[in-house]
Amino acid sequence: MNILVIQGPNINLLGLRNPKIYGELKMEEIHNRLSKVASDLGCQISFFQSNHEGQIVDVIQKANGVYDYLLINAAAYTHTSIAIRDAIEAIAVPVIEVHLSNIHARDDFRHKSLIAPVCKGQISGFGYLGYEMALRIAVSELKGV
Amino acid sequence: MNILVIQGPNINLLGLRNPKIYGELKMEEIHNRLSKVASDLGCQISFFQSNHEGQIVDVIQKANGVYDYLLINAAAYTHTSIAIRDAIEAIAVPVIEVHLSNIHARDDFRHKSLIAPVCKGQISGFGYLGYEMALRIAVSELKGV
Amino acid sequence: MNILVIQGPNINLLGLRNPKIYGELKMEEIHNRLSKVASDLGCQISFFQSNHEGQIVDVIQKANGVYDYLLINAAAYTHTSIAIRDAIEAIAVPVIEVHLSNIHARDDFRHKSLIAPVCKGQISGFGYLGYEMALRIAVSELKGV
Amino acid sequence: MNILVIQGPNINLLGLRNPKIYGELKMEEIHNRLSKVASDLGCQISFFQSNHEGQIVDVIQKANGVYDYLLINAAAYTHTSIAIRDAIEAIAVPVIEVHLSNIHARDDFRHKSLIAPVCKGQISGFGYLGYEMALRIAVSELKGV
Amino acid sequence: MNILVIQGPNINLLGLRNPKIYGELKMEEIHNRLSKVASDLGCQISFFQSNHEGQIVDVIQKANGVYDYLLINAAAYTHTSIAIRDAIEAIAVPVIEVHLSNIHARDDFRHKSLIAPVCKGQISGFGYLGYEMALRIAVSELKGV
Amino acid sequence: MNILVIQGPNINLLGLRNPKIYGELKMEEIHNRLSKVASDLGCQISFFQSNHEGQIVDVIQKANGVYDYLLINAAAYTHTSIAIRDAIEAIAVPVIEVHLSNIHARDDFRHKSLIAPVCKGQISGFGYLGYEMALRIAVSELKGV
Amino acid sequence: MNILVIQGPNINLLGLRNPKIYGELKMEEIHNRLSKVASDLGCQISFFQSNHEGQIVDVIQKANGVYDYLLINAAAYTHTSIAIRDAIEAIAVPVIEVHLSNIHARDDFRHKSLIAPVCKGQISGFGYLGYEMALRIAVSELKGV
Amino acid sequence: MNILVIQGPNINLLGLRNPKIYGELKMEEIHNRLSKVASDLGCQISFFQSNHEGQIVDVIQKANGVYDYLLINAAAYTHTSIAIRDAIEAIAVPVIEVHLSNIHARDDFRHKSLIAPVCKGQISGFGYLGYEMALRIAVSELKGV
Amino acid sequence: MNILVIQGPNINLLGLRNPKIYGELKMEEIHNRLSKVASDLGCQISFFQSNHEGQIVDVIQKANGVYDYLLINAAAYTHTSIAIRDAIEAIAVPVIEVHLSNIHARDDFRHKSLIAPVCKGQISGFGYLGYEMALRIAVSELKGV
Amino acid sequence: MNILVIQGPNINLLGLRNPKIYGELKMEEIHNRLSKVASDLGCQISFFQSNHEGQIVDVIQKANGVYDYLLINAAAYTHTSIAIRDAIEAIAVPVIEVHLSNIHARDDFRHKSLIAPVCKGQISGFGYLGYEMALRIAVSELKGV
Amino acid sequence: MNILVIQGPNINLLGLRNPKIYGELKMEEIHNRLSKVASDLGCQISFFQSNHEGQIVDVIQKANGVYDYLLINAAAYTHTSIAIRDAIEAIAVPVIEVHLSNIHARDDFRHKSLIAPVCKGQISGFGYLGYEMALRIAVSELKGV
Amino acid sequence: MNILVIQGPNINLLGLRNPKIYGELKMEEIHNRLSKVASDLGCQISFFQSNHEGQIVDVIQKANGVYDYLLINAAAYTHTSIAIRDAIEAIAVPVIEVHLSNIHARDDFRHKSLIAPVCKGQISGFGYLGYEMALRIAVSELKGV
Repeated sequence: MNILVIQGPNINLLGLRNPKIYGELKMEEIHNRLSKVASDLGCQISFFQSNHEGQIVDVIQKANGVYDYLLINAAAYTHTSIAIRDAIEAIAVPVIEVHLSNIHARDDFRHKSLIAPVCKGQISGFGYLGYEMALRIAVSELKGV
Repeated sequence: MNILVIQGPNINLLGLRNPKIYGELKMEEIHNRLSKVASDLGCQISFFQSNHEGQIVDVIQKANGVYDYLLINAAAYTHTSIAIRDAIEAIAVPVIEVHLSNIHARDDFRHKSLIAPVCKGQISGFGYLGYEMALRIAVSELKGV
Repeated sequence: MNILVIQGPNINLLGLRNPKIYGELKMEEIHNRLSKVASDLGCQISFFQSNHEGQIVDVIQKANGVYDYLLINAAAYTHTSIAIRDAIEAIAVPVIEVHLSNIHARDDFRHKSLIAPVCKGQISGFGYLGYEMALRIAVSELKGV
Repeated sequence: MNILVIQGPNINLLGLRNPKIYGELKMEEIHNRLSKVASDLGCQISFFQSNHEGQIVDVIQKANGVYDYLLINAAAYTHTSIAIRDAIEAIAVPVIEVHLSNIHARDDFRHKSLIAPVCKGQISGFGYLGYEMALRIAVSELKGV
Repeated sequence: MNILVIQGPNINLLGLRNPKIYGELKMEEIHNRLSKVASDLGCQISFFQSNHEGQIVDVIQKANGVYDYLLINAAAYTHTSIAIRDAIEAIAVPVIEVHLSNIHARDDFRHKSLIAPVCKGQISGFGYLGYEMALRIAVSELKGV
Repeated sequence: MNILVIQGPNINLLGLRNPKIYGELKMEEIHNRLSKVASDLGCQISFFQSNHEGQIVDVIQKANGVYDYLLINAAAYTHTSIAIRDAIEAIAVPVIEVHLSNIHARDDFRHKSLIAPVCKGQISGFGYLGYEMALRIAVSELKGV
Repeated sequence: MNILVIQGPNINLLGLRNPKIYGELKMEEIHNRLSKVASDLGCQISFFQSNHEGQIVDVIQKANGVYDYLLINAAAYTHTSIAIRDAIEAIAVPVIEVHLSNIHARDDFRHKSLIAPVCKGQISGFGYLGYEMALRIAVSELKGV
Repeated sequence: MNILVIQGPNINLLGLRNPKIYGELKMEEIHNRLSKVASDLGCQISFFQSNHEGQIVDVIQKANGVYDYLLINAAAYTHTSIAIRDAIEAIAVPVIEVHLSNIHARDDFRHKSLIAPVCKGQISGFGYLGYEMALRIAVSELKGV
Repeated sequence: MNILVIQGPNINLLGLRNPKIYGELKMEEIHNRLSKVASDLGCQISFFQSNHEGQIVDVIQKANGVYDYLLINAAAYTHTSIAIRDAIEAIAVPVIEVHLSNIHARDDFRHKSLIAPVCKGQISGFGYLGYEMALRIAVSELKGV
Repeated sequence: MNILVIQGPNINLLGLRNPKIYGELKMEEIHNRLSKVASDLGCQISFFQSNHEGQIVDVIQKANGVYDYLLINAAAYTHTSIAIRDAIEAIAVPVIEVHLSNIHARDDFRHKSLIAPVCKGQISGFGYLGYEMALRIAVSELKGV
Repeated sequence: MNILVIQGPNINLLGLRNPKIYGELKMEEIHNRLSKVASDLGCQISFFQSNHEGQIVDVIQKANGVYDYLLINAAAYTHTSIAIRDAIEAIAVPVIEVHLSNIHARDDFRHKSLIAPVCKGQISGFGYLGYEMALRIAVSELKGV
Repeated sequence: MNILVIQGPNINLLGLRNPKIYGELKMEEIHNRLSKVASDLGCQISFFQSNHEGQIVDVIQKANGVYDYLLINAAAYTHTSIAIRDAIEAIAVPVIEVHLSNIHARDDFRHKSLIAPVCKGQISGFGYLGYEMALRIAVSELKGV
């Protein structure tokens, strides 16, 4: 089992940016915690962060046939990128959409996710725990439990 | 730790209604699985289902001071009930919103949740696993981990 | 052949409320006339009226496997209840939507029926005759004529 | 009692066009069945079909003082023709709007009927039976029953 | 000076249709009065009425090089016909838009004129007098006064 | 003179819920104060609170012929219930709409009242005093002053 | 017969402002021409111009019982002033709305007239001639011809 | 205690304008009644009416530090004036918004009040009594009762 | 191989109407050029032009079983005719939509094509060449190349 | 070089009204600072403030031929006044739009400026400095640097 | 003659992604076919694909003065990129917009092309043939035929 | 004092692209002029231009702690990039938004700036001078004058 976590624009600033909304954990700390859980669950996990829409599209395309599940927090691109949506739709790997904050309780322009209709499901509002639960769901489904 | 799961209208038909969308598990089976997980996590769990908006409002009000966390799948009322929203907002108990299907990938009128802005977060699209993950998040937070 | 007529909120006031719009017949008189027609057509007919959205959802759910056809005038809930829509969609019994007045010629907020897409068809604007014709259609279809 | 049935654009293709939506009966078969029912009910019935908005307006105008009731399936013009609406409003003959399919369950642009506000009522979704019921309602009203 | 008056759908019913809105004059009486005024002003006037959008387009096209001014009451087609708009825009003859009733004080769907942006100007709300004033304006402009 | 005060969903939580918005008085205290004022004004007053839309419809229907005036704070149902609107419209008893908070200064979805067009008038933003003033108006009108 | 012409904001700049749209006549020249026509028609005519919404409201109010007809070019206030609309509606004097340019062929925000629904009718697009024709209509109606 | 009542455009026509909507009392009679009530309540009351938006802004600005409470019926400016809104927001004196008619039951463009979000509350639909109740509320609050 | 080109309203004015937008070729010249290309490609081609929506519907219906491919420039009816859309959908002959000008770069009301969803594809903006390319595509597909 | 600064409604309250948004400088202090800068730049500067839309229109009209540049902070009228827009468009003097606060970061109804399309440019969000920079730009352009 | 074909995001996945919608040809096969046609037509052709909006902007900028015609399938960026639109508008090279599928028959958010108004024309729905026809049009125009 | 100027997509084409709208200065000339002014003001200034949204996000992130003020002309990304908005919001450096042309006077889709709410203020419409004034404001604020 091989899982890739894709982090969108400005996620690399976690801990600095609006701690009230996004929490105080840094991105690396989230990745460390996830690595431990992945290890416990017996699966491999990798991480990718980029502020470039095109790079995220590239990585999603290349994930096809390499990874078994993608977890994506597309951040700002969630609401503006049809290109990422099309990339997710084009590959055979299932994808879970994660958001640190509850996007449905913020600015109007953050309510609508362009990628939601092509993802398996969405988890938003639980900070680090959202990633962990997405990881557990991915593993459960891959194990066919 | 005392947790209440509130199931909205037509959830009692699970297994019969659109298995492609909602899965083949019956509501009782979901509840049984959740009870086992709750037991493992060392917390108490109760269940309530109703097709009546008013009864759901009553139950949310009475949960105040009795339960430590609510998990709610308000189903159709998610999109039409300001009364349930106001009840959630009025009590001190935190609430997680769960949906079996990915509501963001269905009819337009199911994209907007009136209760999302007053909930801790939202999990949608993972069938039974959505409830289980919500339960794990609730317990994690109550344990302060 | 077993048919149930479901009457929504304020239909019990027929004859009192806006006779210009809804006609002068009382609900009981409508039911009496329908009973006679049903008898002539060789089918059984029952009636249920409620002002409670939740009770209407309950009754629709329980109609599954008991009735062969439902005739429903959801009145005000026609325009606001996704819960009733979901209940109709969940059961295997076909449903005809009836309105006493021509809802398409009234206030804007009465033009849109949330239940129409999950009903067999809609009859509006003919007062008592709308119910009778819905009954005749139901019986025709059940007889396979 | 003298009744005219007006059939709008593409109705002449019935049986060929989308049988899943419009049924397998041809327009002539519908007319034959209606002629028999009219005969049983003791009334005269005529038929007119056209793909031309202007011809339908002409026929509605000339129906004034000649026919006692009009049944109209304006098909596509239902949603675009203010001219047909104005013609119906201008004459003294009452009109019933009929649709073979349930227009409220199809494309968004078919939900709105421009002629509904000037018709007695609307029947949609019952194929041939919709016409027959409209005929029965017209005769009932003309007989003052 | 050669002027053509084009009357749209249902204008031929004037005097019968909604006298409160459209006045009690018949179309022929309007034409007679206009003929007298035209005679006084030393110009020729012709009249054309049709319920057919296509015929109105044909007539507008053929007016090019034959008439010096068009007065048009496109009635219902005012609000739905891009074809008439395109025809007016395509010819070199100036056009005045006339409406018997004040379209800005009626149904919302009568507020917007598709042909207004390609006409010289619009007169609405003055019954017969609107045509007469349009005629006077046309003659004034042709005389270069 | 017999007056009924109808309190909608979550009003029973007054004093607990958002004191900044709704004030610190409990519902019972509001009722006690109103009883005293009613006594001074020489009229009888009763109270009803429910979280159930259907029960509020029932109570409004039964108020016909029993009460001389209704004061209603429909709370969340103000913005979603056509059923309550229809019930108010159906009875002969005049109704005043009251809101504790200034609904026009809150969330967008609280600006529109579905019941306002069938009520005598609306008072919003004055906490307890809004009810008292509504009561005074009702009595003034019943006394014909 | 006593007629008042009310000119709205910036009309006093005629001849300077956008001659392509508004023509080259100055306001005084328009008034002189109108005075001559009024004299020929045997009626008195007065003029009032203001850039102040409130002054226009004042003048409309005071016109009641003094003038027999008002001609108004409310210019920019046409599209923003409910106060002028209410003043027109409040008085018993009939009003004709005039615009120099064809407002329906300009910016979107100039298409909608707030005063149109309370005026007798509207003339737009004919420059000076629009005023003259409005005057002729007013006199015709006052003479009962 | 010093209170100012500000009356917006066309309120000076009360009794003349649409008595069905606005009642038959003249503005002066409303003011006389209010003066008596104010006297009974032991407070001073003044009145100001203007059809000019700018004058109303001026008066609101100058009320700061002079009056203890403002009652305002901004009439048509309620729906169009951000300037009045800004003036109300800028001063320290609390303001109550009053409307003679139930603005929520009239034209769509009268439903939205631009000043409501910066006022204490709104009373609409009760004619003279609305002012009196606003006065009583103002005095109650000033007395700290 | 038998191909029909259908030309909508005002196309017969080509060369006269707005040469900047539509080019200087006359409709006959376009047809002549197309005839030569068709001859080279070994297929038969016919032409039909009408300003009448109904005639276009008639011709599309009759094309069924007679022609192998339709090329249609519905001109103004592109944006208003559901009847033409329904006719295209009803027949088994594939259809290509052609526009002389780039409709996506013109007035807003020309951006939306009602017939696009039932056509094979759309070519717009290339004048005569658009027709020729549509013809080449049709022949390629019929030849199965 | 002669420059006029026009200040709109409620600007005279600067320093009192919402210092967080508008800053603590009083209008006179802004004017004093601007006078010094103008003196340094070798140009004359005048100031005008009014709460009256009509007076602002008057002043803009009269500025034609008198001033070389206008700086305007139309405040609330920025968003509601087509009359001011038309006045700016009518004169030959260039105009710069200034706002103390960043209007694009405030209420939705403050995002849209009706005068922006007829101004040279817009500066918003810099308090006093916005005026100074507008003055410097005006002088630079007048000097042709 | 030198032509560049620009392929947008996810076009490199052709053949894998939704063959029902996009066809079974791979991008390289499309390019090979186009190279042959270009060779026959006596012109040079190059190809560029990128998932990065910024790279596409760079390439369009650099095409100025190097290529004689651009063919672009901007894929997802068609609907979201004003930057690509501005780049196309900024250069002197003409551009044809191509889409493999009929974008007007798919999701609503794919109906609107931001680049269409600055392109020569649009071809959509014909798979590989769309590119070939665009190439033939480009060559025809460059040859001045 | 260390200031960075960020130039968005297509700004590198200045002088070539639409000189009427954007002026004739090249980007380098703007930068040279700004360098001189910065030197006079005693501050350091750097420049960065990119057509890539992601690179602009990277640069904004890295500016934190390095620069004292940012001036940004995000060009097309102004209207589409939530990622740039989030980057600006995430850092502690203040930002001024500059536009060469008056974006409020151009296409509708250029009126709305997604970054405005997180910037200090906006200057648009003054070409090179806009940058210079932004620089002067930045320096003034840094100097605390």
